[in-house]
Amino acid sequence: MKRFNRIAAMMNYLLEHPRTRVNLEYFVNTYDVSKATVSDDLNVVDSTFQEQGIGKLKRVIGPSGGIQYIPKLTAEKSLQYVNEFCNQLSDPGRILPGGYLYMTDILGDPVSVRKIGQIIASAFAEKDIDVVMTVETKGIPIAYAVASFLNVPVLIVRRDPKVTEGSSISINYVSGSSRKIQTMVLTKRSLHESMNVCIIDDFMKAGGTINGMISLVEEFGASTTAIAVLAEADDEEEDRVIEEYTSLIKISNVDMKQKKINVQPGNFLENFSPMEEL
Amino acid sequence: MKRFNRIAAMMNYLLEHPRTRVNLEYFVNTYDVSKATVSDDLNVVDSTFQEQGIGKLKRVIGPSGGIQYIPKLTAEKSLQYVNEFCNQLSDPGRILPGGYLYMTDILGDPVSVRKIGQIIASAFAEKDIDVVMTVETKGIPIAYAVASFLNVPVLIVRRDPKVTEGSSISINYVSGSSRKIQTMVLTKRSLHESMNVCIIDDFMKAGGTINGMISLVEEFGASTTAIAVLAEADDEEEDRVIEEYTSLIKISNVDMKQKKINVQPGNFLENFSPMEEL
Repeated sequence: MKRFNRIAAMMNYLLEHPRTRVNLEYFVNTYDVSKATVSDDLNVVDSTFQEQGIGKLKRVIGPSGGIQYIPKLTAEKSLQYVNEFCNQLSDPGRILPGGYLYMTDILGDPVSVRKIGQIIASAFAEKDIDVVMTVETKGIPIAYAVASFLNVPVLIVRRDPKVTEGSSISINYVSGSSRKIQTMVLTKRSLHESMNVCIIDDFMKAGGTINGMISLVEEFGASTTAIAVLAEADDEEEDRVIEEYTSLIKISNVDMKQKKINVQPGNFLENFSPMEEL
Repeated sequence: MKRFNRIAAMMNYLLEHPRTRVNLEYFVNTYDVSKATVSDDLNVVDSTFQEQGIGKLKRVIGPSGGIQYIPKLTAEKSLQYVNEFCNQLSDPGRILPGGYLYMTDILGDPVSVRKIGQIIASAFAEKDIDVVMTVETKGIPIAYAVASFLNVPVLIVRRDPKVTEGSSISINYVSGSSRKIQTMVLTKRSLHESMNVCIIDDFMKAGGTINGMISLVEEFGASTTAIAVLAEADDEEEDRVIEEYTSLIKISNVDMKQKKINVQPGNFLENFSPMEEL
């Protein structure tokens, strides 16, 4: 195999296995080249990732030696993507009854969803996360996108128990905005004590749904270590029950009558550590 | 930029933009090299994709000249992945009441879901598909994975209308196995006449749910051009209302008492055209 093909193949392998520790021996055996050659090739891959602004290779120290591809967008690239979403969402034709915003088209576009997941995973690149959790339905694609960059599984919380998921644990919680009592259900065999959970949702108003998921995590004896939403409604901030969270977009001053809306970047950049600290 | 970095960067760009027509000029301008150099580099990318068994570059003929990355796993690689899923699913501990199988762990693993999507997209690489449709909840991650390789949007059919999706069209249909009347709802602004729809679900028994989606597609004046499920229950074949579909896995002889189950590859290879025909 030519050097070009080998480098391209290594890069593809690492992109498909983010955050996975790979021993140099693996590449030595796969491509039948020396450890020094693998090391040179990985330098090229690393510099390409950094030039593209999509992360870096992290050397794992130890007797066998290894590397990990840590996907992490630069702050500039993340802000550029978020500004594009803000422009798309600023259209007043998107305002729906109840101060909601029509985002179904963006959430239905796999390229947009992948970018959203990539930004959230970048903000959480240094966090200890074992699993991503969301509640059906609209947060599901974002949760999978985040999980694919963090290389962890996804848990989907249901509104009703399903026969196809075996026995489950359920909780009741009070919805933040409507003050109604609602139910959340999670399969018993899915979450264990000592697991660190990242909670994801598409939209946060008062934060009742996310609070419900936090309670569910506690019910299993696990910990919530990160919370992120695509959009938060800024006008509800005073009543909000959630304090620490990451948002990509902040929506405020929704005025149905005047057909006006204010969409701006959320607080996600506060969580961005510089690339060198990885 | 060194040639190695440029080739790796081009590969990454094409992986992120599957099925998108890219003019050679784009690379000429981005990397400030001649058209001949771009052409040489793309040959390396193409041979890497083919060696890895993940697809090929298709030349688009015309005045400006261009290429498209068509993601397509080889039949061998697809069968290898499917056999791995069959092994995982053959565990009799997965049998649930009603002849269902516990698959939540596999559907919660982004790497597995991505492979499932890649195989289905490979089987449909020659089909005309404008949008992928699924019904909440468990088919959603598979639908996004398929859509990301086909580079088309996803439509999620709901069980009830939601305020956050605007006005909608709903239909009633008879569930195949339970014979109950159920409802399906789809946002009005999401699907248009003349669109070709690919229907995706996680599990098919008699096929009532998929039949419901076919009716919904007809209601919008659109066409269903492809149907795929992760697993089909073979024992229901006689009553099945759906004739043409693609399945990755076939489950049969589910015996709750004896704790026995038969899991084997589905019919997906019947749809695999050879790589050269792309």
